[in-house]
Amino acid sequence: MVNKIFMLMTFIGVPLSVVGSLMHWSDIILFIIYCLTIVALASYMGRATESLAIVAGPRIGGLLNATFGNAVELIISIFSLKAGLVGIVLASLTGSVLGNLLLVAGLSFFIGGIKFKRQTFNVYDARHNSGLLMFAVIIAFVIPEVFSMNMNETKTLSLSIGISVILIILYLAALFFKLVTHRGVYQPSTAKVAHEEEEPEWGKRKAIAVLFIATLAVAYVSERLVHTFEYVGETLGWSELFIGVIIVAIVGNAAEHASAIVMAFKNKMDIAVEIAIGSTLQVAMFVLPVLVLVSLFFDTTMPLLFSWQELIAMVSSVLLMVVISNDGESNWFEGLTLLAAYLIMGIGFFLL
Amino acid sequence: MVNKIFMLMTFIGVPLSVVGSLMHWSDIILFIIYCLTIVALASYMGRATESLAIVAGPRIGGLLNATFGNAVELIISIFSLKAGLVGIVLASLTGSVLGNLLLVAGLSFFIGGIKFKRQTFNVYDARHNSGLLMFAVIIAFVIPEVFSMNMNETKTLSLSIGISVILIILYLAALFFKLVTHRGVYQPSTAKVAHEEEEPEWGKRKAIAVLFIATLAVAYVSERLVHTFEYVGETLGWSELFIGVIIVAIVGNAAEHASAIVMAFKNKMDIAVEIAIGSTLQVAMFVLPVLVLVSLFFDTTMPLLFSWQELIAMVSSVLLMVVISNDGESNWFEGLTLLAAYLIMGIGFFLL
Amino acid sequence: MVNKIFMLMTFIGVPLSVVGSLMHWSDIILFIIYCLTIVALASYMGRATESLAIVAGPRIGGLLNATFGNAVELIISIFSLKAGLVGIVLASLTGSVLGNLLLVAGLSFFIGGIKFKRQTFNVYDARHNSGLLMFAVIIAFVIPEVFSMNMNETKTLSLSIGISVILIILYLAALFFKLVTHRGVYQPSTAKVAHEEEEPEWGKRKAIAVLFIATLAVAYVSERLVHTFEYVGETLGWSELFIGVIIVAIVGNAAEHASAIVMAFKNKMDIAVEIAIGSTLQVAMFVLPVLVLVSLFFDTTMPLLFSWQELIAMVSSVLLMVVISNDGESNWFEGLTLLAAYLIMGIGFFLL
Repeated sequence: MVNKIFMLMTFIGVPLSVVGSLMHWSDIILFIIYCLTIVALASYMGRATESLAIVAGPRIGGLLNATFGNAVELIISIFSLKAGLVGIVLASLTGSVLGNLLLVAGLSFFIGGIKFKRQTFNVYDARHNSGLLMFAVIIAFVIPEVFSMNMNETKTLSLSIGISVILIILYLAALFFKLVTHRGVYQPSTAKVAHEEEEPEWGKRKAIAVLFIATLAVAYVSERLVHTFEYVGETLGWSELFIGVIIVAIVGNAAEHASAIVMAFKNKMDIAVEIAIGSTLQVAMFVLPVLVLVSLFFDTTMPLLFSWQELIAMVSSVLLMVVISNDGESNWFEGLTLLAAYLIMGIGFFLL
Repeated sequence: MVNKIFMLMTFIGVPLSVVGSLMHWSDIILFIIYCLTIVALASYMGRATESLAIVAGPRIGGLLNATFGNAVELIISIFSLKAGLVGIVLASLTGSVLGNLLLVAGLSFFIGGIKFKRQTFNVYDARHNSGLLMFAVIIAFVIPEVFSMNMNETKTLSLSIGISVILIILYLAALFFKLVTHRGVYQPSTAKVAHEEEEPEWGKRKAIAVLFIATLAVAYVSERLVHTFEYVGETLGWSELFIGVIIVAIVGNAAEHASAIVMAFKNKMDIAVEIAIGSTLQVAMFVLPVLVLVSLFFDTTMPLLFSWQELIAMVSSVLLMVVISNDGESNWFEGLTLLAAYLIMGIGFFLL
Repeated sequence: MVNKIFMLMTFIGVPLSVVGSLMHWSDIILFIIYCLTIVALASYMGRATESLAIVAGPRIGGLLNATFGNAVELIISIFSLKAGLVGIVLASLTGSVLGNLLLVAGLSFFIGGIKFKRQTFNVYDARHNSGLLMFAVIIAFVIPEVFSMNMNETKTLSLSIGISVILIILYLAALFFKLVTHRGVYQPSTAKVAHEEEEPEWGKRKAIAVLFIATLAVAYVSERLVHTFEYVGETLGWSELFIGVIIVAIVGNAAEHASAIVMAFKNKMDIAVEIAIGSTLQVAMFVLPVLVLVSLFFDTTMPLLFSWQELIAMVSSVLLMVVISNDGESNWFEGLTLLAAYLIMGIGFFLL
């Protein structure tokens, strides 16, 4: 029933988005069409992710979800870099980290926690992710910020390149660890049984195809939506930083949001956490360093240097998330805490 | 026997304090009278808290103990704010956070640990508290400090107001979580049995009445004691900051100190931790933001901006406490570590 | 068989090192001789530590290994202090902390993890160490850095002296805790059995004697090796800071490296962790504060003030290590993460 409504919304919304965009309809009308279309498309992504998770495990499902979502971000960022908009790229990546870590995870914990008193997820994965979050943000982002204070531009760029290469290698090593050498090693035996009994809605190929096409469509509509936001922002007096860190990040991660929340509501916290934190790690350890390296071929290079506000926002978010997620349990209050932290960041960037 | 001595001390000490204060006795004599009276009164508070904890659980007992203690602090701070003493209010609240987190908890762990080799407390409560400590100090206090570097005064105040409202809402939500939706959900079954068998010394009403009256009396005598300290401080060459952060905080939290240590000595670590960390959270998430909002009605407003020294002292204390308390166990050495941290802070603020 | 080769290498390498050094052979040849000799000597230290660990427990074994290793560092540093080289002493101690925490532990986890899928160590010891790491670095090193910003030199020195005394007392209290009041209290029963069945290679006295003599020999050869590095560094264009923090630290901790890795390869992670983190703590809580106090008798005093780069490198390393080690488990990927962090620090100090 709900699925049918979403199907209808999709097959009306996508063509309408294209037509409306080409014909330059009013931004308000376009805004509403885009949002409804994204929600409908996101429901497809959620179902595809769930099917994949049943067939291939929550890690693969979450990984594919995050990857398709971030691929879009990567492509958009490369165009921005080419145009020399280094500040905007760093802002939107910061927003992506904060959005996934605080907003996506926060909504998942909160909404899932309203339905279920206590929700659990794989505690070994949570600890593994904690280590990576600490490494990426507290080491790889903090060190260039502090060391570059006494460095010239050339050395700062060299340091950025070195760290970027290390981040990418460690990210690939983490995949190798999770999917090859330690696949299934840290699975709690009880959780496994429950999953295997389920019947996936779609087969592996169809699920990946749906995920791929829906992601493309979301990417197209999101990119359109961002343009309406820019006009809306101007009339509302929003700063570029606020639009970059908060608005673009929320819309750009619509896919992750929708899927993670749907999974949390079905008490499949392993997938929800994998989407939220996995997507954060992918942005921090893969998308960002790749962009640093790609920028070397453009006129304006992008060193791994955030503003102090962006850096401290990420550092404090990571510390909060590590403490909250490290026990492999969640409830509505933990979700609310993460959302409150996001709200504080949002107010901060709005006023900046 | 001991209780009779404390009763005697109370019924002699309180009238003597009033008389001596009115007749302007020598500060040295008053100092001794005040201190002994506070100790005697604190014993009543400890007994009342313990009775309440048996009747209504360690959380309610600890919460009421912290609330009565902090109510006094709130009232005194409002008068200071009215007089425009923003720096002193922030210093004494910093001192309250450091004092509860390092000194009260440190003494509880240390003294309890000398009697018992290993003491345990509810690990779920410890983690819940860790999340809140991180949120309050690492997010809500750090963000305005870093963001206000690039903000004017008006925007800084707006950010402070927004964060204060969020802190208060999250604090109330935490009470709702602990006392309503998740009451008893995270109770280890073993601990519960032991408590229920005990007979409370006083009934619920009498215990609250004793706690209330003893708190009022402690508040009165503490306030007097602070004045003797100011004179003593002048002759000893103590700075205002040191008096605010360390001396006032020690005396102003005498109630929490005494009760928590008594509980630790009786191996009732759940109550001791609830008093120490619960009181810290109440100051950080309720007393402080309420004062920020109240200050809007006065001539001098108080933004949520600590000095860097105050902020870093709180941040590092919270990180230490989270790591030490997160396993739900304590021993004398963990207590000594917290005390050593407090001593370092004390020396730092003394020399500043 | 392997032991015989190492024996041969030792009895050829040590005399050759002495002769070559006296006769001023080419630095390249000396460099090769020194390195091979250290590896051979380190194998003796590893065997002696292992024997001691079987006889007296992993803590004593690890403690003695760390103590002999750091004694050398202490002596060399005192000579540097006498020559007024405060910056170099702080740099080499920073390097020692980073080296033990990231490189020694990282190599142990990585190499041990390649052989064994999951390795475990005493989780109580890991948490105890986490608390001490936080105390030493996040409190005792951070507070003087932040507080001294508003202090004159005399007060900064007073604060350094106070903190140094507190560090030494807490370090001795930690030994008292581990070896006297809580000896064996936190031993998991399963691990104990496995150890007791083993036969030590050498008796207690012989093991200590071998450890002592081998440490002395390593110290002599390392000191020689450092001098070749200085020449090599000059021709390669290495900065003093890089040599101090990275090169000297690697060579100066050769003993810890070799022993810890050998133990990890034998799946004796308790000893490996005790060497790596125990040595870090000994440097931070004993060697460093003793040097601060000793410097008072020299012309140039050494306050407890690191450069911001050194401090942040240590703070972020400690946070990473606490999150990674707190579950009492390790695998190759956790080792790789620590090594990646060390590499980032290394590049940073190289470029500085």
